[in-house]
Amino acid sequence: MSQLRILIDANDEKGLVHKVSTVFYSNDLNILSNSEFVDKENNKFFMRSVIDGDIEAQELKKSLKEVLPSDASVDVVEPKKKSIIIMATKEMHALGDILIRHEAGELEANILCVISNYDKLESLVSKFDIPYIAISHVGCERSEHENKIIECIDSYKDVDYIVLAKYMRILTPRFVERYEDKIINIHHSFLPAFIGANPYKQAYDRGVKIIGATAHFVNNNLDEGPIIAQEIIHVDHAYGWRDMQRSGRDVEKVVLSRALKLALEDRIFVFANKTVIF
Amino acid sequence: MSQLRILIDANDEKGLVHKVSTVFYSNDLNILSNSEFVDKENNKFFMRSVIDGDIEAQELKKSLKEVLPSDASVDVVEPKKKSIIIMATKEMHALGDILIRHEAGELEANILCVISNYDKLESLVSKFDIPYIAISHVGCERSEHENKIIECIDSYKDVDYIVLAKYMRILTPRFVERYEDKIINIHHSFLPAFIGANPYKQAYDRGVKIIGATAHFVNNNLDEGPIIAQEIIHVDHAYGWRDMQRSGRDVEKVVLSRALKLALEDRIFVFANKTVIF
Amino acid sequence: MSQLRILIDANDEKGLVHKVSTVFYSNDLNILSNSEFVDKENNKFFMRSVIDGDIEAQELKKSLKEVLPSDASVDVVEPKKKSIIIMATKEMHALGDILIRHEAGELEANILCVISNYDKLESLVSKFDIPYIAISHVGCERSEHENKIIECIDSYKDVDYIVLAKYMRILTPRFVERYEDKIINIHHSFLPAFIGANPYKQAYDRGVKIIGATAHFVNNNLDEGPIIAQEIIHVDHAYGWRDMQRSGRDVEKVVLSRALKLALEDRIFVFANKTVIF
Amino acid sequence: MSQLRILIDANDEKGLVHKVSTVFYSNDLNILSNSEFVDKENNKFFMRSVIDGDIEAQELKKSLKEVLPSDASVDVVEPKKKSIIIMATKEMHALGDILIRHEAGELEANILCVISNYDKLESLVSKFDIPYIAISHVGCERSEHENKIIECIDSYKDVDYIVLAKYMRILTPRFVERYEDKIINIHHSFLPAFIGANPYKQAYDRGVKIIGATAHFVNNNLDEGPIIAQEIIHVDHAYGWRDMQRSGRDVEKVVLSRALKLALEDRIFVFANKTVIF
Repeated sequence: MSQLRILIDANDEKGLVHKVSTVFYSNDLNILSNSEFVDKENNKFFMRSVIDGDIEAQELKKSLKEVLPSDASVDVVEPKKKSIIIMATKEMHALGDILIRHEAGELEANILCVISNYDKLESLVSKFDIPYIAISHVGCERSEHENKIIECIDSYKDVDYIVLAKYMRILTPRFVERYEDKIINIHHSFLPAFIGANPYKQAYDRGVKIIGATAHFVNNNLDEGPIIAQEIIHVDHAYGWRDMQRSGRDVEKVVLSRALKLALEDRIFVFANKTVIF
Repeated sequence: MSQLRILIDANDEKGLVHKVSTVFYSNDLNILSNSEFVDKENNKFFMRSVIDGDIEAQELKKSLKEVLPSDASVDVVEPKKKSIIIMATKEMHALGDILIRHEAGELEANILCVISNYDKLESLVSKFDIPYIAISHVGCERSEHENKIIECIDSYKDVDYIVLAKYMRILTPRFVERYEDKIINIHHSFLPAFIGANPYKQAYDRGVKIIGATAHFVNNNLDEGPIIAQEIIHVDHAYGWRDMQRSGRDVEKVVLSRALKLALEDRIFVFANKTVIF
Repeated sequence: MSQLRILIDANDEKGLVHKVSTVFYSNDLNILSNSEFVDKENNKFFMRSVIDGDIEAQELKKSLKEVLPSDASVDVVEPKKKSIIIMATKEMHALGDILIRHEAGELEANILCVISNYDKLESLVSKFDIPYIAISHVGCERSEHENKIIECIDSYKDVDYIVLAKYMRILTPRFVERYEDKIINIHHSFLPAFIGANPYKQAYDRGVKIIGATAHFVNNNLDEGPIIAQEIIHVDHAYGWRDMQRSGRDVEKVVLSRALKLALEDRIFVFANKTVIF
Repeated sequence: MSQLRILIDANDEKGLVHKVSTVFYSNDLNILSNSEFVDKENNKFFMRSVIDGDIEAQELKKSLKEVLPSDASVDVVEPKKKSIIIMATKEMHALGDILIRHEAGELEANILCVISNYDKLESLVSKFDIPYIAISHVGCERSEHENKIIECIDSYKDVDYIVLAKYMRILTPRFVERYEDKIINIHHSFLPAFIGANPYKQAYDRGVKIIGATAHFVNNNLDEGPIIAQEIIHVDHAYGWRDMQRSGRDVEKVVLSRALKLALEDRIFVFANKTVIF
């Protein structure tokens, strides 16, 4: 008996739920949870089920593919720890939050390594017996720097997610395309406001009464990828931009970890630059 | 072609989704939305679907009953305006909020009348051409007072919900039982904190940093019925209890209207003194 | 004995609090509340005090001006109902919320009239015995239309605030300058995101997980005036843009009313396109 | 030139602000921030100022005492790292959050040691070169166990705060009185709801739609001390109590760290079992 996660998306048509549930029923599977959504604008059907029963993932996938339309995308995932790489620059809070969750056994993930363009975080990361790879960008073309990072990432096989825990450098389209829908970033504003550098300074200058953070998949356009999670806190006139930055850190780390958890539990569909999250 | 809402609860067993979706599919119905939940503690299955197609509500209900276990409860509801009665005492904000929504055509409901134990709200209600029935409790035993209210309510047939928009008197078990799962109340605290009289004064005395409101169905135990919706706002030491009361009103009215909307859209299941809301 | 609100802003220098409190003390005034803030970036001092005592507003103002630097701005305001004009277009929720608060006696304001470019809201407004002036923009140049509105506004003397309760037309610089720091608008997004038309559609297209509302003073640049209050709610993939619009209304009306209350209580300073709020 | 924090509370009377500001002015001090509050119910005045200037803390305190009523309490504090002891049991999240903040240099505190009734957290704490003292309660009377803890605490001099980062044992009145207004606890509910053991289970059983956390000073009555900070998150029917527990951790750690920061910055007054926070 094992638990499996089934992820289906397809062009919407009548009978999809019927077909899927027939496969589950005829295989004597128990549905633990079931979520469906139809994006009517795009006529797109999404479904995530968790079942337990006596069946192999590949066999279930095959059975589902047989009954579903040929355009349907079907994924059957065994719940197990995923492999992640964290990239960071100098700030500890988002990285530290993930390290503590990992240490507490809360995270459905193995951290393969932490890559940074500085060596500042090494003393923190090494406490947790996780490899720390400093790849400095100094005196190095952007493409050359990224090549070194790619080399490092690709030295691991089966990297499920690359988590940018306040990695403060822009990634090139080449890098982003290589790891499509695998790079999760935390941006320190409620996107789409304050794209780009120093959003807290931008927020301060604009005189906003809320600040926030946005976790999103990275695509080629800076800070414009599919949004996974957002949260805000209230501020007032007494907050200078450094106060905003300090207070904002608590939002950043919580939102990033929440997004990471959703990804690790296979709860996110990406479609049309948006996310469907069950 | 018409839209129908299907509400099913049953003891959980394998195949329920399959059975329901087979009925939908074989009747050529289009599923607009579908939500399911299994309460594992109580082994209870809940499902709400919205379909459109060419079928009568009674016919669909019959077909579903035929395939589902005999203990299953099946409801097939045509979306139409429900009939509600509002009860209030002296405060305008929650009542006024519902009246404005009604006037704006936002509310899937007809307001049959407003009943109050004072005449203070009459000038407001009468602006909207809604009957206002003042039933004073003064010089009148509690049971006698309630008898008059019951008589008034029962003079209407098919009252779907009784909305207590800051009705400040305790209802007897006899009254509550008569309208089981039909009375929606707004309590001005985040329950279960501050049950009973003047929760803002209680909150002030306790020195809390948040205040809130809770919409719930009324059962026989004061402020202990199934919770539908809750919200809070932050306060600080500068709030006296009357400031809390003033600020709290915005939460009260929004939470009550949110709960009412959920009820009118047939989104709430009540079970084991809790709600399942789709 | 009467209550007075004192509002001071000045270039910051040592001794300002001392000077002000000396005036209060030597006049035997009782300080009910006192708030101060120094904007260090701009070296600007802000202070709001509420006192009670036996003194005329003009006399107190004169005494304060005598001790404070000549550049200081000093306002001494007697708490009394301010006069406001509401402008709206077709939506009821924000307007209705203000009308109900006014009816409940919650609002420190007289509503002089409601101006709309449609007649749709007349039946609502007239219930409350408030003049409704429909000034259609149809077949009319923008400047001509605004001239009619200005004529209407200026027919009242002493208009303290013009409240745009979902007034859906852009105001020209000429109009805005005429009523500087007097026009309060509610924009249906968390500014600076989604400036301009149909922010809910923009929000939907971007796939955000929060939507919000922003109350701000209007200046010449669309949706770029000083922000008074902001609030958000969470949404998910199941929200179409019309669902966002519907849910967003509750935020809009609450935020607008909150901002209006702050203005009516003389709690807002405007400086450098920001607000300081006590 | 140095920065000082001045904390004053006194029975309210006219002229207090005047007297304080006169001392500041005559000593040529620059006020960086100034907050005042009068608790009208108790006729109590609270003031916190931050100044910079060329004066000794003791001298300033003396000058203030000379002009203020004899009942006034005056504190002049130099901003420097305070000394804290953390007590925990088995959970990592709240402790880990403080350790990371400490490591990042965000915390205005030295962590003297971590005391736990288990050894489970030792591997985490020892990574950060902070003494970990396991004092098991097993086979040991409550008073005996506390004696060992007291002995440990008192082996350090000048312990400013004892932070209970999910320390899951009840403290006796004797212990609490010894460290009055020095023990900060995080309780995993929005108090006063769900006092006592397993509040998430209680919350689940009650069917609430929000869960929360409360940081408070500990007094002799369980979970009834002065509240410093509270926060909530929304939950729905799909949350079992363990899901609530998991999600609640993020609120717990953020609220505890927020409360600790307020304490370390000398922003909290405790009075009448409440807090005034500037």
